[in-house]
Amino acid sequence: MTEQTAAELTPEQARERFRSGWRVPTAGLCPGWAQANLVSVPREYAYDVLLFAQRNPKPCPVLDVTEPGAVSTSVFAGDLRTDLPAYRVYRDGEFVEERTDVSELWRDDLVSFLIGCSFTFESALLEAGVPVRHIEQGRNVPMYVTDRECRPAGGMAGPLVVSMRPLPASAVATAVRVTSRFPDVHGAPVHIGDPAELGIADLGQPDFGDAVDVRDGELPVFWACGVTPQAAVMRSRPPFALSHAPGHMAITDIRDATLQVP
Amino acid sequence: MTEQTAAELTPEQARERFRSGWRVPTAGLCPGWAQANLVSVPREYAYDVLLFAQRNPKPCPVLDVTEPGAVSTSVFAGDLRTDLPAYRVYRDGEFVEERTDVSELWRDDLVSFLIGCSFTFESALLEAGVPVRHIEQGRNVPMYVTDRECRPAGGMAGPLVVSMRPLPASAVATAVRVTSRFPDVHGAPVHIGDPAELGIADLGQPDFGDAVDVRDGELPVFWACGVTPQAAVMRSRPPFALSHAPGHMAITDIRDATLQVP
Repeated sequence: MTEQTAAELTPEQARERFRSGWRVPTAGLCPGWAQANLVSVPREYAYDVLLFAQRNPKPCPVLDVTEPGAVSTSVFAGDLRTDLPAYRVYRDGEFVEERTDVSELWRDDLVSFLIGCSFTFESALLEAGVPVRHIEQGRNVPMYVTDRECRPAGGMAGPLVVSMRPLPASAVATAVRVTSRFPDVHGAPVHIGDPAELGIADLGQPDFGDAVDVRDGELPVFWACGVTPQAAVMRSRPPFALSHAPGHMAITDIRDATLQVP
Repeated sequence: MTEQTAAELTPEQARERFRSGWRVPTAGLCPGWAQANLVSVPREYAYDVLLFAQRNPKPCPVLDVTEPGAVSTSVFAGDLRTDLPAYRVYRDGEFVEERTDVSELWRDDLVSFLIGCSFTFESALLEAGVPVRHIEQGRNVPMYVTDRECRPAGGMAGPLVVSMRPLPASAVATAVRVTSRFPDVHGAPVHIGDPAELGIADLGQPDFGDAVDVRDGELPVFWACGVTPQAAVMRSRPPFALSHAPGHMAITDIRDATLQVP
């Protein structure tokens, strides 16, 4: 399958391929359809997750929350156990494995959170003439753990995680303007320029995803990232939790445009 | 105290007077400072309230959620037990009494939700030349239970409650534009015109607050109202719950302007 045909898939078609084992980062896939982070925790941990999201809306914009045990929602008609390209499994807060199918591990008390993803505004960036390096380079977006602490909730606490896109200075203002219109998928950048101010030592060594080229005259631009709640959930050490694998998102049935504010 | 001096109070001064027993609807008080609805429920009911709010953001924009038992938050430096002008007390989902002080009833497991209130955008309406009838008439805003059901969450379910402001046709577009900029305090109207379409039989008989004059050529304009979660909480029949009395809001330490989007 060429990149072109892959990009043209509907959410349903993409999910069907993921179900068959297709394991790819989802940046650039299904343009025009919103992508989402997944965090699934036992019901007794769900209040802390929801409160953490409420207190940290920039990294954790909640698109939907399932009933306990439910495997689909009004914004995701697929099966949450099989229809993402890759999952991470956590036990007692520790990452134990990645899988492409979590059917065997599913529990009836799991509450799933779908949290907005910045991949959603990348179509709008491209349409506005703003380059998106990781798509150009066919890589996963680089993500970094910062030294900024989120506001805690119950047992959940942790640092802000950001995604980074390098931009020529001339494109920064447009990128701010375009992404500001998508508050439910992280909105405007949280930081533009010096990575050291976020406690990031080396852009070439992302904590998640792949490094991308930063060219002469380009500024690194940082957006809040939906991996943030994963890190915080793990800090609260739930006996069991699932998430998407970073960059391997849930492709939803929400049109990008419906997440855009005037 | 004249209306003029009352309107010029700081949030701290207003809360001090409420603490001393001053019982008034808060529309028009402390212009420039955001007002909030209060709902306090035992911790075991808090997840349903928070999820209901997440699923119904228009009537239930959450400004803050306290830790269990806490009597103040970063957005409300006063004492939640005494510093609102009036409270409602519910047992097993039934309204049992109104009070101006709930200190004696307070419980260490109460989680308090501060939910945005449309009084917050009334300063902006007035500045834009849009008349606000209940302020003109020195009354509480009229509120109505509609026939539109909210999306349920756990044991919480119930109808959308709306506030109504009558406007001359020439002011409706401005009112939409101005209030759209305040999504965290209910934002744009949910309905403009025929009350029957919302299942409201008689504007002269509001379910909460006071009726106001609707003059010839004026349209009733309806905004989602923070009384909505009160009604839904009661449907879930928690053994104990508190709320503000309709129209008698928490005056917060948040400037209106910080709730305004571009």
